Amino acid sequence: MKKIEFDDKLNKPSLAFQPLYKQVEEHVKQLIIERRWNPGEALPNEFQLAEELGVSQGTVRKALNGLTAAKILTRQQGVGTFVSEHNTQQSLYRFFPLIADGKHPELPAATLVSLAIEKVSPIVLKQLGLSEKDKVIHLVRQRLLDSQVCIHESIFLPYKYFESLMNETELPHTLYHYYQQSFNLTVQKTQDSIKAVLADAETARFLDIAEGDPLLEVQRVTQTIDDKIIEYRVSKCLSDKYHYFVELS
Amino acid sequence: MKKIEFDDKLNKPSLAFQPLYKQVEEHVKQLIIERRWNPGEALPNEFQLAEELGVSQGTVRKALNGLTAAKILTRQQGVGTFVSEHNTQQSLYRFFPLIADGKHPELPAATLVSLAIEKVSPIVLKQLGLSEKDKVIHLVRQRLLDSQVCIHESIFLPYKYFESLMNETELPHTLYHYYQQSFNLTVQKTQDSIKAVLADAETARFLDIAEGDPLLEVQRVTQTIDDKIIEYRVSKCLSDKYHYFVELS
Repeated sequence: MKKIEFDDKLNKPSLAFQPLYKQVEEHVKQLIIERRWNPGEALPNEFQLAEELGVSQGTVRKALNGLTAAKILTRQQGVGTFVSEHNTQQSLYRFFPLIADGKHPELPAATLVSLAIEKVSPIVLKQLGLSEKDKVIHLVRQRLLDSQVCIHESIFLPYKYFESLMNETELPHTLYHYYQQSFNLTVQKTQDSIKAVLADAETARFLDIAEGDPLLEVQRVTQTIDDKIIEYRVSKCLSDKYHYFVELS
Repeated sequence: MKKIEFDDKLNKPSLAFQPLYKQVEEHVKQLIIERRWNPGEALPNEFQLAEELGVSQGTVRKALNGLTAAKILTRQQGVGTFVSEHNTQQSLYRFFPLIADGKHPELPAATLVSLAIEKVSPIVLKQLGLSEKDKVIHLVRQRLLDSQVCIHESIFLPYKYFESLMNETELPHTLYHYYQQSFNLTVQKTQDSIKAVLADAETARFLDIAEGDPLLEVQRVTQTIDDKIIEYRVSKCLSDKYHYFVELS
């Protein structure tokens, strides 16, 4: 990284220049994407990073603050700064908003129903940013809270990112952690569009409810820290004894 | 504010001590709650605040960063730091997640249907943290996107915070801004619990749909920056041409 002659404390950023700490933030993010450090691994301390990058320690701190706020890094007071791993309770819950009424959040178990390369609808291709010649993996799972089936999950993955997934005979319950560990794809952001729908015959059988019962349909598009769309998923959720929880602030 | 003898950069916070910037953050928040500055008004600059509070400018900056991240303050590059007002597009959208399919977010109009002090169910009292002897204002509104009724809104307010609201003959469309301006109650956080339900006869008539059509039911508890629960609301939303949008990161 080139040492730069201005600092954002002295100059207002113009269109042409990015504040130095932002450039450092981007650079460190790139190093994480390129797996210089593995998920869960500690970064060098601020002093070492500052020296290596030829910037001040304050600039490094500001850059790491940004990556911590974006949850790409995790800080442990008095221990160090780590590449966030999708296996802590907190990081797993963060993307799983269905909660049993009156209960604490819990991670649902998953049972794989089917896994195949499939011809998918134009809508799915569009959501994944793919064209008709791209192959798509389709995964169907049921998810269970407290041994009760509560979600029918239909997951679409671009084959180009997940080729070796087709060789698996079993998949872990928590896919985001698996994407990170096995494919170096770290989930950064999900966008959910939620509708109320009536259960069709097939979904009703699957969830052991009556046809025409109300369900939450959650369409989710998932992006990685390097802005790849890696997953489109349609979840049909029971909400008689469950609710989708959102905190806005 | 007392000048304190340690700084968090030198000492690890223990159970007994809070980092200095956190104390400053709390103090400035308290000043905002007490209306030393009005919504939309600029704070003194960091130098002046540092002098007044007897702390370093760096500590003030850190405290203001925290309040900006919590959206209590808004920063305008090169202009100053302001008490956030609930009237900018951004702050209004932040709490309104229903979007017409394929459209950009838009603020819905509101029509007042009824306004009265009412005896409410134990569930409503519990959500508002009130007891049976507390009075509750009940507000019913219809909300419209693009002139189409899309939400039946049932809003419950503790009478103790909103006494003078009963004298109003008309209410503004955007209530959170009105709460802030007229009652010094600034919304900081909402918690939504979302379920899919079937429309009952009354709601169906109200929304001009068929009985048994699927609806999103959003139960919302709203808190202010000083942690008061000021509103419980139940919204029944059409989702045939609309969706509730959530971004998790």
